Amino acid sequence: MYTPELDEIRAVRERIRPWVRHTPMMPLPSLIEDRPSGLRLKLENLQVSGSFKARGAFNHLLQMTPEQRVRGVVAASGGNHGLAIAYASKRLDIAATIYLPTTASADRVARIRAWGTTVILHGDNPNDALQRAKEHGEAEGMVYVHPFDADRTIQGTATLGLELLEDLPDVDCVLIAIGGGGLIAGMSSAIKQLRPDVKIIGVEPTGAPSMQAAINAGHVVQLANTTTIADTLAPRSVSERTRALTEKYVDDLVLVEDAAMVRAMRWLWRECNQLVEPAGAAVIAAFQSGVVDLSPYKRPVALICGGNAAAESVFVSYER
Amino acid sequence: MYTPELDEIRAVRERIRPWVRHTPMMPLPSLIEDRPSGLRLKLENLQVSGSFKARGAFNHLLQMTPEQRVRGVVAASGGNHGLAIAYASKRLDIAATIYLPTTASADRVARIRAWGTTVILHGDNPNDALQRAKEHGEAEGMVYVHPFDADRTIQGTATLGLELLEDLPDVDCVLIAIGGGGLIAGMSSAIKQLRPDVKIIGVEPTGAPSMQAAINAGHVVQLANTTTIADTLAPRSVSERTRALTEKYVDDLVLVEDAAMVRAMRWLWRECNQLVEPAGAAVIAAFQSGVVDLSPYKRPVALICGGNAAAESVFVSYER
Repeated sequence: MYTPELDEIRAVRERIRPWVRHTPMMPLPSLIEDRPSGLRLKLENLQVSGSFKARGAFNHLLQMTPEQRVRGVVAASGGNHGLAIAYASKRLDIAATIYLPTTASADRVARIRAWGTTVILHGDNPNDALQRAKEHGEAEGMVYVHPFDADRTIQGTATLGLELLEDLPDVDCVLIAIGGGGLIAGMSSAIKQLRPDVKIIGVEPTGAPSMQAAINAGHVVQLANTTTIADTLAPRSVSERTRALTEKYVDDLVLVEDAAMVRAMRWLWRECNQLVEPAGAAVIAAFQSGVVDLSPYKRPVALICGGNAAAESVFVSYER
Repeated sequence: MYTPELDEIRAVRERIRPWVRHTPMMPLPSLIEDRPSGLRLKLENLQVSGSFKARGAFNHLLQMTPEQRVRGVVAASGGNHGLAIAYASKRLDIAATIYLPTTASADRVARIRAWGTTVILHGDNPNDALQRAKEHGEAEGMVYVHPFDADRTIQGTATLGLELLEDLPDVDCVLIAIGGGGLIAGMSSAIKQLRPDVKIIGVEPTGAPSMQAAINAGHVVQLANTTTIADTLAPRSVSERTRALTEKYVDDLVLVEDAAMVRAMRWLWRECNQLVEPAGAAVIAAFQSGVVDLSPYKRPVALICGGNAAAESVFVSYER
């Protein structure tokens, strides 16, 4: 099992530092409603490209050789990974091709295209797009970047663990959403190596419990289907790499309903003026719906992983 | 002319400190598009209640006598002032009554009500609601808080000037939106007393140039009407108090079109994942539309004054 070591994570952090943001910890005080005592929000939704995915994307792209840079990068994602690769390739002046399923939202396609990326719509589900992207990369000699299953991706998310410990050295609990598991694998590796006493709790949608299934089975499980509004948390399986690190470093896994995520989105907007995607609100939904009890902790942090909600309707309303 | 003195502003800052947030300066790097060199955003849209208005509201309410607290507070506002008074009164356990015009958005009414405030809809324009609120306060012996024309309000916004200088001691230019002028009057007073060399530029909508009219005339001018999507920047007149401080401390006034504000809203969302109201984007619109040239400055700051956009359509879309 690959575990990113602290020296390695620190080196990756220096590599990507000029290109990513040190995101703010939402300052207390003062939430009116439902505030667990001492709760802080780490606003990784304010990361460049709108999610933590930028960290792994830059870690990959900054290590491409001059020859690889000429050929370019290819990825598949209708979500934050696609935005992150598009953003990083634009900043680093590397050609990028992103495959999306034909079902991808027009909003996401427009945002990815706006950054100068070639978008190819293929198939009606993420797995088909992913398979095609990989083949395209092999055929053209391009670097293919998987959405979560790569050491360099996990090193990238691990930098967020270091950053969080720097922001709040006496943190005692961290809530982290799980899609393919790349975020929690990296963050928990960094945090637990430095502070084994910090409790780490993973949050999945009830409609896409791919990590819980894998942990219970002791190996990766392919779910028959996933149904959740949190599209970025909806892969049908995690990977062995992310499963093994989660088994080693994560203390608890919990599930949240879609309705609880929407309620948490409204709460984040009303109390914190943060508009986030459903995945970004999953950690809030976890304590609001009672599946996580934060009362034993003095310095809990909820990691807000992404902000890329479909907001176009708001702008249109002001143009009327 | 009342000018808040530095010792006074510092005392107010200590008074309100437990109740408001020290808001983040949006960390650089990395904007892809249209980035003026060195630009930073002071995210006061992340203030409690979603705007800078919370600072003045707490400064008023925390100085109410025990007897006044029993009688309660009254204000008129369909916008951020109403939200701030509602929020502060909820936190401090003071009864609040807010008058809104019958034309106020359902979204704002719902948010103010959600914080336990009594909402009274009266008249079809803000001035009628304001007049009625004032009369209500006098009749019932309640404390009436004007949206911008009060020393304590200006002291509150002045604390934001001190905070900004602390965040970025070598700031050399600050862009600030103008509605009634309370924000720019307080902020510029604080900043210029400490750093007279910092350039301060005020931004108004082309459809509501109440400060520009007042500065040009040398006295407060009542505009025949105002038309802008930035409702919080739309009062038909400033006050003598805010006019005089602006004349003394503000270097330039510029105007922005509604369309430029919507374009700036989209930019803030795409590049910074900040959903803000039109007023919050006015300062971005100012340099994007070319009415402000930031190239002479090394450390310019755009003050994002408020975030309370009408976002309900986003949440509804995820409930489908």
